[in-house]
Amino acid sequence: MDMSAEGVVALSLPRAMAQAAEEIDAALDALLPRPEGGEARLFEAMRYSTIGGGKRLRGFLVLEGARQFNVSRQAALRVAAAVEMVHAYSLIHDDLPAMDDDDLRRGKPTCHKAFDEATAILAGDALQTHAFTVLAEEETHPDPSVRVELVRRLSRAAGPRGMVGGQMLDIMAEQATAPLDEPAIGRLQLLKTGKLIEVSAEAGAILGKAATPQRHALEFYGRDLGAAFQIADDLLDATATAEEVGKATGKDAGAGKATLVGLLGIERARLQAERLVAQARDHLDSFGEKADLLRLLADYVIDRRN
Amino acid sequence: MDMSAEGVVALSLPRAMAQAAEEIDAALDALLPRPEGGEARLFEAMRYSTIGGGKRLRGFLVLEGARQFNVSRQAALRVAAAVEMVHAYSLIHDDLPAMDDDDLRRGKPTCHKAFDEATAILAGDALQTHAFTVLAEEETHPDPSVRVELVRRLSRAAGPRGMVGGQMLDIMAEQATAPLDEPAIGRLQLLKTGKLIEVSAEAGAILGKAATPQRHALEFYGRDLGAAFQIADDLLDATATAEEVGKATGKDAGAGKATLVGLLGIERARLQAERLVAQARDHLDSFGEKADLLRLLADYVIDRRN
Repeated sequence: MDMSAEGVVALSLPRAMAQAAEEIDAALDALLPRPEGGEARLFEAMRYSTIGGGKRLRGFLVLEGARQFNVSRQAALRVAAAVEMVHAYSLIHDDLPAMDDDDLRRGKPTCHKAFDEATAILAGDALQTHAFTVLAEEETHPDPSVRVELVRRLSRAAGPRGMVGGQMLDIMAEQATAPLDEPAIGRLQLLKTGKLIEVSAEAGAILGKAATPQRHALEFYGRDLGAAFQIADDLLDATATAEEVGKATGKDAGAGKATLVGLLGIERARLQAERLVAQARDHLDSFGEKADLLRLLADYVIDRRN
Repeated sequence: MDMSAEGVVALSLPRAMAQAAEEIDAALDALLPRPEGGEARLFEAMRYSTIGGGKRLRGFLVLEGARQFNVSRQAALRVAAAVEMVHAYSLIHDDLPAMDDDDLRRGKPTCHKAFDEATAILAGDALQTHAFTVLAEEETHPDPSVRVELVRRLSRAAGPRGMVGGQMLDIMAEQATAPLDEPAIGRLQLLKTGKLIEVSAEAGAILGKAATPQRHALEFYGRDLGAAFQIADDLLDATATAEEVGKATGKDAGAGKATLVGLLGIERARLQAERLVAQARDHLDSFGEKADLLRLLADYVIDRRN
């Protein structure tokens, strides 16, 4: 058994992620209480799509980033929950019939299948709004400049020059006659999934009022991690079964989706992901042992099986 | 010709609203620049649904509220534009086939008719996100506590305990077997349209760091105005033609929609709207002549023809 320091940390990554997921679920449960009245259905749909599902990669990044600067766990959990709400909203809307038309998500029926289309549209809308309420409330941080900076960075990452812009690019790419080249795919994925992962890694530094170089280090770590994660996701789509990953697979090739795996082939794409992971780890050079889970997380995103 | 002070102001309300609408359009144009690349389509759809349409009631409320406290016009216009983005996003999503399935809005094809459903979903999503970016940016106000308070109030008004919650209630009411009673309709409309109008009136006081009583006065003015506006809207739906109002009419009765007009009848609903308008004006008692346009606006919302 590997009992070196790194070995002990490696053993604890899955445990730390499971623990974080549990704490994030508890935070989401508290932030989305079931109300009386007709809007209860809306909250049920919001809870259905956020609580008890997913790896919580983004929330885990918030928590680990915040831990580097000794931010209170309660504050970090609110921000982690807000980021996961934005992520969940994007998945609900992506799964809609007018978008990717998916029936399965995180191993269970998608929101519009479990409820209906109108409720799913509204649940997505409300999760996005509620994420900004949570960030703006005083419980998140006593300093208003910290709270408003979190709103500014998360809204930019999620908006038309971030996640939603990337989703639009993805739809345009499917309809285009010529396939995208490597820089275009890289940009699409940076916007669609990268920016949100980047801001998740950066958020702890904002909460901790970190010096600019450390904040940037986490931001760049998040960017490389996000790019590696996307390639790993596409590799899983190309090689794994739906049962293994809890959602439909093999869809990208079928839909002619623009992915680096499709463009470069499985082996070269895997090499590129490994290069990105090494680069992500390099950004953490100025951090001490406390960042070991973030280092291991970089390896994990390309080794994962689901 | 009525040349009393009130008469002169009355003459200038339509002019002031037209002027404000023009300035808000210019602000939206600047805040939604057309980018290069595939996401240009997203911005086109966002622009299509925000610029050059609507009465700008909410934006006008922001501007007039801000004027009471000598807030810079540029700051007030950013907040007015943000509120109009949130309003436009809600209209885009409400018009979707899975929701109200409307083809006509503000006298032109709805967003999903002019573009497509996926683009309309994304344009709505992105308008909401971008509104919070605009509020959070330093150009809106040098004091971060003002900016974050704007985010907090607008997100609460638009979220699951506000606008989106009201939309959910509306859908539930259509599917319910028993009609809603008066308090339930009042609550539905307060959430669905009232909260956003309320926060529009309050926003200028937040920007102007007004004392609590004045801020509350504008908030309560907005609440009564919003309730009166909703009844007027339902009266128009019951009595006007589509050509007159630029969207489909007579739909409420057909869809069995829960409105006070349906419950109370046209005459009693009109009386209630007049009572609300008088109450809205009363809230402005501590304000001087500068608030005359807000007083006239209260009369206007129930006298308007579209």
